Amino acid sequence: GMKVHRSTKVVHFSEFFFVWIFSFRRTQSLHGPSPVTTFGPKACMLQNPHAVMHIQDPASQRLTWNKPPKSVLVVKKIRDASLLQPFKELCIFLTEVKNMIVYVERKLLEDPAIAGDENFGVIIKKLCTFREDLDDISNRVDFIICLGGDGTLLYASSLFQESVPPVMAFHLGSLGFLTPFKFDTYQSQVTQIIEGNAAIILRSRLRVRVLKENREKKARVDEKGIIMTNGDSEGSRKAMQYQVLNEVVVDRGPSSYLSNVDLFLDGHLITTVQGDGVIVSTPTGSTAYAVAAGASMIHPNVPAIMITPICPHSLSFRPIVVPAGVELKIMLSRDARNTAWVSFDGRRRQEICHGDSITITTSCFPVPSICFRDPVNDWFESLAQCLHWNVRKKQNYLSSEEDDF
Amino acid sequence: GMKVHRSTKVVHFSEFFFVWIFSFRRTQSLHGPSPVTTFGPKACMLQNPHAVMHIQDPASQRLTWNKPPKSVLVVKKIRDASLLQPFKELCIFLTEVKNMIVYVERKLLEDPAIAGDENFGVIIKKLCTFREDLDDISNRVDFIICLGGDGTLLYASSLFQESVPPVMAFHLGSLGFLTPFKFDTYQSQVTQIIEGNAAIILRSRLRVRVLKENREKKARVDEKGIIMTNGDSEGSRKAMQYQVLNEVVVDRGPSSYLSNVDLFLDGHLITTVQGDGVIVSTPTGSTAYAVAAGASMIHPNVPAIMITPICPHSLSFRPIVVPAGVELKIMLSRDARNTAWVSFDGRRRQEICHGDSITITTSCFPVPSICFRDPVNDWFESLAQCLHWNVRKKQNYLSSEEDDF
Amino acid sequence: GMKVHRSTKVVHFSEFFFVWIFSFRRTQSLHGPSPVTTFGPKACMLQNPHAVMHIQDPASQRLTWNKPPKSVLVVKKIRDASLLQPFKELCIFLTEVKNMIVYVERKLLEDPAIAGDENFGVIIKKLCTFREDLDDISNRVDFIICLGGDGTLLYASSLFQESVPPVMAFHLGSLGFLTPFKFDTYQSQVTQIIEGNAAIILRSRLRVRVLKENREKKARVDEKGIIMTNGDSEGSRKAMQYQVLNEVVVDRGPSSYLSNVDLFLDGHLITTVQGDGVIVSTPTGSTAYAVAAGASMIHPNVPAIMITPICPHSLSFRPIVVPAGVELKIMLSRDARNTAWVSFDGRRRQEICHGDSITITTSCFPVPSICFRDPVNDWFESLAQCLHWNVRKKQNYLSSEEDDF
Amino acid sequence: GMKVHRSTKVVHFSEFFFVWIFSFRRTQSLHGPSPVTTFGPKACMLQNPHAVMHIQDPASQRLTWNKPPKSVLVVKKIRDASLLQPFKELCIFLTEVKNMIVYVERKLLEDPAIAGDENFGVIIKKLCTFREDLDDISNRVDFIICLGGDGTLLYASSLFQESVPPVMAFHLGSLGFLTPFKFDTYQSQVTQIIEGNAAIILRSRLRVRVLKENREKKARVDEKGIIMTNGDSEGSRKAMQYQVLNEVVVDRGPSSYLSNVDLFLDGHLITTVQGDGVIVSTPTGSTAYAVAAGASMIHPNVPAIMITPICPHSLSFRPIVVPAGVELKIMLSRDARNTAWVSFDGRRRQEICHGDSITITTSCFPVPSICFRDPVNDWFESLAQCLHWNVRKKQNYLSSEEDDF
Repeated sequence: GMKVHRSTKVVHFSEFFFVWIFSFRRTQSLHGPSPVTTFGPKACMLQNPHAVMHIQDPASQRLTWNKPPKSVLVVKKIRDASLLQPFKELCIFLTEVKNMIVYVERKLLEDPAIAGDENFGVIIKKLCTFREDLDDISNRVDFIICLGGDGTLLYASSLFQESVPPVMAFHLGSLGFLTPFKFDTYQSQVTQIIEGNAAIILRSRLRVRVLKENREKKARVDEKGIIMTNGDSEGSRKAMQYQVLNEVVVDRGPSSYLSNVDLFLDGHLITTVQGDGVIVSTPTGSTAYAVAAGASMIHPNVPAIMITPICPHSLSFRPIVVPAGVELKIMLSRDARNTAWVSFDGRRRQEICHGDSITITTSCFPVPSICFRDPVNDWFESLAQCLHWNVRKKQNYLSSEEDDF
Repeated sequence: GMKVHRSTKVVHFSEFFFVWIFSFRRTQSLHGPSPVTTFGPKACMLQNPHAVMHIQDPASQRLTWNKPPKSVLVVKKIRDASLLQPFKELCIFLTEVKNMIVYVERKLLEDPAIAGDENFGVIIKKLCTFREDLDDISNRVDFIICLGGDGTLLYASSLFQESVPPVMAFHLGSLGFLTPFKFDTYQSQVTQIIEGNAAIILRSRLRVRVLKENREKKARVDEKGIIMTNGDSEGSRKAMQYQVLNEVVVDRGPSSYLSNVDLFLDGHLITTVQGDGVIVSTPTGSTAYAVAAGASMIHPNVPAIMITPICPHSLSFRPIVVPAGVELKIMLSRDARNTAWVSFDGRRRQEICHGDSITITTSCFPVPSICFRDPVNDWFESLAQCLHWNVRKKQNYLSSEEDDF
Repeated sequence: GMKVHRSTKVVHFSEFFFVWIFSFRRTQSLHGPSPVTTFGPKACMLQNPHAVMHIQDPASQRLTWNKPPKSVLVVKKIRDASLLQPFKELCIFLTEVKNMIVYVERKLLEDPAIAGDENFGVIIKKLCTFREDLDDISNRVDFIICLGGDGTLLYASSLFQESVPPVMAFHLGSLGFLTPFKFDTYQSQVTQIIEGNAAIILRSRLRVRVLKENREKKARVDEKGIIMTNGDSEGSRKAMQYQVLNEVVVDRGPSSYLSNVDLFLDGHLITTVQGDGVIVSTPTGSTAYAVAAGASMIHPNVPAIMITPICPHSLSFRPIVVPAGVELKIMLSRDARNTAWVSFDGRRRQEICHGDSITITTSCFPVPSICFRDPVNDWFESLAQCLHWNVRKKQNYLSSEEDDF
Repeated sequence: GMKVHRSTKVVHFSEFFFVWIFSFRRTQSLHGPSPVTTFGPKACMLQNPHAVMHIQDPASQRLTWNKPPKSVLVVKKIRDASLLQPFKELCIFLTEVKNMIVYVERKLLEDPAIAGDENFGVIIKKLCTFREDLDDISNRVDFIICLGGDGTLLYASSLFQESVPPVMAFHLGSLGFLTPFKFDTYQSQVTQIIEGNAAIILRSRLRVRVLKENREKKARVDEKGIIMTNGDSEGSRKAMQYQVLNEVVVDRGPSSYLSNVDLFLDGHLITTVQGDGVIVSTPTGSTAYAVAAGASMIHPNVPAIMITPICPHSLSFRPIVVPAGVELKIMLSRDARNTAWVSFDGRRRQEICHGDSITITTSCFPVPSICFRDPVNDWFESLAQCLHWNVRKKQNYLSSEEDDF
């Protein structure tokens, strides 16, 4: 179907009709057709092979396995009693029935309701544990299962700063944007995923680099992410890198003053944000904090970055959507009276001072999220369930013709 | 730079650092990096060569000529006296200096201020004229020059239902989103374009197909676009096709009742619009009517379609952005009491009755619009100029600390 | 409680505490306290007895009868089969049990389902009928009962250009903003109202005067309202007056061009509206069309007028709320290329040409709408039911602390 | 003019016309007409003399003096070098020319640029100083002059918890909402005010009472305002009272979790706010933080309170406007996981824990703010200057008819 679209010959009437009929059957493309590259009789696009990208249509993206998966990371929301039984069941199923190696965070097992459960003791001994920030399991996990809410997926994402294993996320209570699976039939569904060939959506992440002037620790900094010393200057700056799935938020923190930050795009100052702050989000994140701040909602298959001001001082400061490939940079404005604070998917909150910079672009390490049905249906289902999007009661607010009120 | 990103091997620390430094120098990509296609140690994306698309990075798109352009269509806003002199100058320059064949619409020459200008008479004789809807010049024009406002480009777009020649658009008064060039130095600028190698932005269009039940002309219908009889049923339906650059608007027309239309995406009913109507727009159109109806603004290089309700009855009916490749369909709801009206870039307004359908998807015939600087700078310049986007006056609305009010 | 607030003496500490305790028990005021009229030790407000208004606190407004009500107007939404049985029951109850004179619009009885019902024939003979626009019943109706939706009340309002009898409105299906009563127990509820002492809310209306230049009928005009010839010019202008309960809408009608209208307040040009149009609404109307166009929602007891642009071209054109006493005037802008259209509660739609003016102010003839519970509870109940106002599902979009996701 | 409106007799045609002509000349009312109190032939409002309020039409409110003002408080924004010279000039003028007693805050004189100015030393000796929170000058000031921005007025307001002397506010740089006067001609303008008969606008304030459970200082509390021990329980609770001119803000403070607060109106739970927080503002405050959070803008003469959620989780949570007389109460929701923080006009920020309550109603101590022209013109002038309200560039986004693009 794609090839037909790329035809640049001006089609005759009959041909065109054919194209149309043909394309009518196509329903699987999510990227959009390749545009023609000749424009009228004599113009065409300058060919530049180095700039050509090969992209698999998002609608056709399916998961497969090079080798059978053997290890699985189970992430559970803590402090939620309703998740205890499903968690135990799942662990038993994975270890006993599927013979998989199950990773869980160590502190999760410290919960008395788990540690004190004698029946579960046998299973506990089989589990592999790790400590966040101390043990790197990113190369040992073939597969991730989340139990809880969208927060479990954000947490899982934060554990994998580079390649992310496929994620299957169960909502136990109400549906989340990132947790499409119901737990009822978890056994058959997990089995099916392990056998391969599931629809996946690659949720783009933002790669965020924070470059800080070296000061006498003005701010509390969680030293998470890949930390490296910038070689340009002799140890005077510190760089941290994060992968975020929802958004980077820069706000005024505890200050009562408006934040004043400059926003650069590919090196050019495009605007100054004066207000409570600014949200730079993925399409996935457009339905999280950004939507509360007034953003339109973007399907996760659109290659884009959303920039949303938080309570901006200017009435005309509408959110904007820029191409996924741009590089954004945020710095305090020269005349900002206060510092700003930045967080990454709601975590690793830290202060940003004069001279510090936050550089953001689309990461090449997306989160491969397993679909319950497919990328389109799952999204509209969660819009309705999570945001009551256009849930309506029919009513005519425009009363009208005299004879029909 | 692209190649590095497509590397799917999990990089080691030192390699990663290299990537990062490298990508820091890249500022030209607008599409976003190709994501990795392996996910953790064992999972990967199922290869599907038929679904791979080859896309040239929008940031690197430049215009060239197979053969030197010889014919140029000049579009001028009518009824604007300030454009007469520039129009005449331009025609003289193109015919006399550049020896080009100049096309203009016939009725444009009927303006007494043009027809009655004796000095211009010699030039008029050299111009080729055409009549809209009657003469097809789509294969005879190498190049288009617009003088006026964004409307001139929408008009030019409507003349080319398939491949569109490159467009160079001058704003004579205030800057428009689609008219980046100033007229002052038109001679050198036109010369430069003719010589080739200009930055262009491919503005995606929507291909809209209206399928109407055959009735005894319930509605005024402009029979524009490619009209064809659908072979499936024996002549009982009529299909029209349009290419729109900004938006398709479906509204309640002169009715006082709310419109009630169903919106389908890839065949699934996703929602019912109850309100004044709905706008389906390109990213180019997101800064036109859609932004007035509350949409976020999308850069034209993002492959997406924006769906914006107009004064929706439901408070939660926020605009959404879907991938460029989907197919949308709009029909009257079964229980709609009134018909709806549809227009295409503000033109060809017609009634939509029960059973009629409007099918919309991204066209493979974009408008190649010549950039004044580049796609990013031109856009932010017009956001500021046309929409006063975040034009601010610094003021502290949050009064605050006791000692600094 | 009011008296205490009006005290202008600067209270001592102990007194103030008393006031506070006292006012804490007050829950019935809806207007706000009378402010003090002395300002510091020496300043005070210049007394102007002519400008003092005597207002009964909206929270204490209750209905009573000078004489027992004898005649009742019943308004029914037409073309809704589910209303037939309730309508008949109500008419029987009012005529047979309550011995009241029942008015209904003549065309309502032309419905075959009513006219053809033999059992109902006896009752029909007892009903008084009237024809809209031809028969004036405004002085003959003691009481109004509406069956249907908000439209029934707008219709009833339009019948009374001056004093409006009390209105009791039943929603038969879903709750409306203007129809708080359930029909189930209509007998006891109607009986109670007739006996008097019901809580009422005075819903302010707008008095709208349209002054038209006398032309050769460029527009269709419904000659409703009080029509009078302006004596200033020799019969060359025509004035119409309307009372609207929800809103006056000025829009671009069938034109594809933006409307361009000037908005004057107390004689001063305050802004020009460029967009789809503008809504001038009462607080009652703020939850109707205005809320769909982005307005905040105003409780009907706030003495105010809301001005809401419809899809304005300017991003900064936020709705505004002005005091109820101002006089607004709307005219086509001098440079408007098209006419505009005006409607009154969705009715009497007519064209507005250059030179015509629409003058709007708060009417002194409100609609006394009988409350189901009280003005505050009824309003919040309808916000939730009609607009799903802040109907929420608890979810944490800000994922956060590492140990609690 | 008012009396005519209150006429409840149904007027004859000729009378009505008179009323209309008459009322057309009225342009000074800002409250709205007194509505009729009879409804149709037999219904009327139950008279309740205790609930009648006597309100002077805001449009006619003018300042006068019981005795000539002798003392003036001068408030100056600190840390703004551009204000030094005007401040000194003003002090010299008031002390030397007008022979007034001038109060200034002590720390203002500690600025080396003031303390070190030998020429100004003579004047300094004549100034009366006070310390915020320690010295009560509320009964000693006849008149207030502010130099700086809106913050100076908020500060001045905070010094007067009960009656506030008239305020004259100069903007030195750009116009503010609360600072209408230019400094150029300050001498004649101040003289004129002292002579009396200036237009004033009574800007309503909110009286806020914070009732805190007595804990072992979980929160930092600035003990400002009138503090009193509640007699009901033996010293176990602490109450503070504030007067705010712009808004009370309850937000999540430094927490990453959404805030969860319950909002009560006259004792009834009306909704739960889940989001970044909620703003309860006066009409004056509607153009400050509230407008940034999406509120419509309310003229300060409308007796109302605005409730605006900050980045609410629910898409349908539109701001609402309630009558000035209601009593609001905000408490942490039972299931809130975190505390909230409250501030008053951006000051006195403090933590709110489970069991604490914030009670808000309209104060009877407004700020009498001297108008530059009048309440209406001053407001629209500041909308344009401060918020660029509907500052437009004419452009036709709806391109349209074929012949006029």
